Amino acid sequence: MIIPGFRFAAAMAGIKKAGVWDLSLMAAEEPVAAAAVYTRNRVKAAPVLLTRQRLRSGRAQAILVNAGNANACTGDQGLAAARETTGLAGELLGIPPGLVLPASTGVIGQSLPLAKIKAALPDLVANLKAEGLPDAARAIMTTDTRPKTAFFQGKLGGRAFTLAGIAKGAGMIHPDMATLLVFIFTDAAATSAVLKSLLRQANAQSFNRITVDGDTSTNDTVLLLASGKAGNPLIAGAGPEMAALGAGLHQVMGDLARQVVADGEGARHVFKVEVRGAATPRDAKKAAVTVALSPLVKTAMAGEDVNWGRIMAALGRSGARFHPEMVEIAFGAEVVVKNGQGLGLDAEAKAQKVIQSGDFTLMIDLQAGAFTDYYDTCDYTEDYIYINASYRS
Amino acid sequence: MIIPGFRFAAAMAGIKKAGVWDLSLMAAEEPVAAAAVYTRNRVKAAPVLLTRQRLRSGRAQAILVNAGNANACTGDQGLAAARETTGLAGELLGIPPGLVLPASTGVIGQSLPLAKIKAALPDLVANLKAEGLPDAARAIMTTDTRPKTAFFQGKLGGRAFTLAGIAKGAGMIHPDMATLLVFIFTDAAATSAVLKSLLRQANAQSFNRITVDGDTSTNDTVLLLASGKAGNPLIAGAGPEMAALGAGLHQVMGDLARQVVADGEGARHVFKVEVRGAATPRDAKKAAVTVALSPLVKTAMAGEDVNWGRIMAALGRSGARFHPEMVEIAFGAEVVVKNGQGLGLDAEAKAQKVIQSGDFTLMIDLQAGAFTDYYDTCDYTEDYIYINASYRS
Repeated sequence: MIIPGFRFAAAMAGIKKAGVWDLSLMAAEEPVAAAAVYTRNRVKAAPVLLTRQRLRSGRAQAILVNAGNANACTGDQGLAAARETTGLAGELLGIPPGLVLPASTGVIGQSLPLAKIKAALPDLVANLKAEGLPDAARAIMTTDTRPKTAFFQGKLGGRAFTLAGIAKGAGMIHPDMATLLVFIFTDAAATSAVLKSLLRQANAQSFNRITVDGDTSTNDTVLLLASGKAGNPLIAGAGPEMAALGAGLHQVMGDLARQVVADGEGARHVFKVEVRGAATPRDAKKAAVTVALSPLVKTAMAGEDVNWGRIMAALGRSGARFHPEMVEIAFGAEVVVKNGQGLGLDAEAKAQKVIQSGDFTLMIDLQAGAFTDYYDTCDYTEDYIYINASYRS
Repeated sequence: MIIPGFRFAAAMAGIKKAGVWDLSLMAAEEPVAAAAVYTRNRVKAAPVLLTRQRLRSGRAQAILVNAGNANACTGDQGLAAARETTGLAGELLGIPPGLVLPASTGVIGQSLPLAKIKAALPDLVANLKAEGLPDAARAIMTTDTRPKTAFFQGKLGGRAFTLAGIAKGAGMIHPDMATLLVFIFTDAAATSAVLKSLLRQANAQSFNRITVDGDTSTNDTVLLLASGKAGNPLIAGAGPEMAALGAGLHQVMGDLARQVVADGEGARHVFKVEVRGAATPRDAKKAAVTVALSPLVKTAMAGEDVNWGRIMAALGRSGARFHPEMVEIAFGAEVVVKNGQGLGLDAEAKAQKVIQSGDFTLMIDLQAGAFTDYYDTCDYTEDYIYINASYRS
């Protein structure tokens, strides 16, 4: 998995436990076009503030990421720490500090262990290599049980191009989880304005469809860097080339988003809540997200219980307009509710088999209009509680 | 606990498991003034629809309640079932069916077991007695671990009066829980318009302060009946008498609401989230409810972990306006965050003792204005998942 123009490295800096990868560096050969979307949480971590400021130029050359410490709610000291670590990284790389973007994930409210990070930086820079992306994917994990990578190859103006992304999702089961970090690299040539536009569109259909707001933590960041090494004519505006790059981005980000859900803390069942027949796009989204985040629906799925009454109750409080006596609910192809009423135990038994058989779609037809929306989500198990009750201990 | 003018009875009708109280009747000697507040969920259970229709008169004489079956999402058949059971109860009581209000709680989407309820009604009517309220409190339980009753005595126009209420909350940990039922009885004399006004006010400060919307399930109902046997001059409008009755109602409903939270499914810690210094009343409410319902805050409390970063993150996504660097957070009297930053491990250790010592207040000062609001809530434990994953099995 090589993306021309980029190199990667990871290290065990001791920010988390000893013997765990927790620091990574991703660097381009030269300054490249870059774009990002960030958390919309009012409480923003220091690295988010600094990255946002530095990316106003639309260009970047490196990303320095630590796991184990979010560097959030750390005030001026936190900002200074982000400046100091990225400053040293820039020095070692021989580039201006303004081209190095910081990102952090982990516990909120603790000081960044400056000495440990600085001690690890020289080797990190020395170890940069083209095939290092999987190492970086591992070093950004927190409660993830496995690294998340996605890869795409396509053509732009007759030239092959590559798109690769890594993500960490510390349990996106709920929108207030600590941190989602996503880093995407391509050798395509495009302006940062084009990258930003494509990133926003793809984000709306991927990471913003696995939570209420993919943007509600203090550290959430999705970064996209484009080295231009593919040699395609620079994409500077709308057209078939921009669409082709967008399609690749959509695929990579959708893939990563699904991996985050599948690795949801304690998750045993992954499912898509799809709402059809809504009166407005807003109604469709409200209905889908309310069902997808309902603790009662999620615990029922953990128990493989076709408890559609909880789905009806969640729809009823979602704010979407519909007539309860029109609603249809199906698990995969197995319809369990028609005209707002249950079809009986046989239908539920068949639907239970759908839940047991793996990933499935919970289909809801409000029969109130023509709009559709969806959320990918997972069930809610005892392990979720265990992981989060003992997160800091 | 006797309320002049009312009698109560309970039975084991076999709607739930054998040997469990699941049917109750509450009856006045004659038609009395009555008022209610209901769920605002778009999906309303048959008994809610019928009670609302019958209470347009402002008068009622009896309430028939079953547990184990919500009679929700049951269509015309469900309405017919509610009519039939309350009709038979009326017949046995010798009163018009329109004076008998139905209420149900339990699983959504299953047909009410008509034959079992009808078979149990004659004995239920025969067993009505003035001291039967505790039996009724037991017979309306579902996943409650203990019955919930509250009692108040005061004076109105020089006459002693009594106010008593019972509640069931099948885990109000989350707003989409099955059902909250509350029944309150008084011998005070007041018009149904006065009762309705007082009920709404007291509800806003009690049951609507233990969830996002105390009103989001399919069956939620709070009913208030006033027999007038206290002999006070009829309260027909604003004045000290209405205020005195309102104070009693406030106390009884607040007491019941706290009992519901304390019996929250799987709850080990009960706490009040109090937000001060908000820029608007709406901001205060948004901030309080977002923290009170945050799964990450609730799981941290289960782990007795002073993880204030999660509180900051929840505040940040609540929609309330504030400057993160102004926020103060305290557990009881132990301040852990000042100026948006943590005060360190010593402060956290003291705050942990507060969590461990029993009910506590989580105090948040946004320092953005003069408005205050609060929510009572409980933690989120493995037992919550267990109870809800296996609810129907």
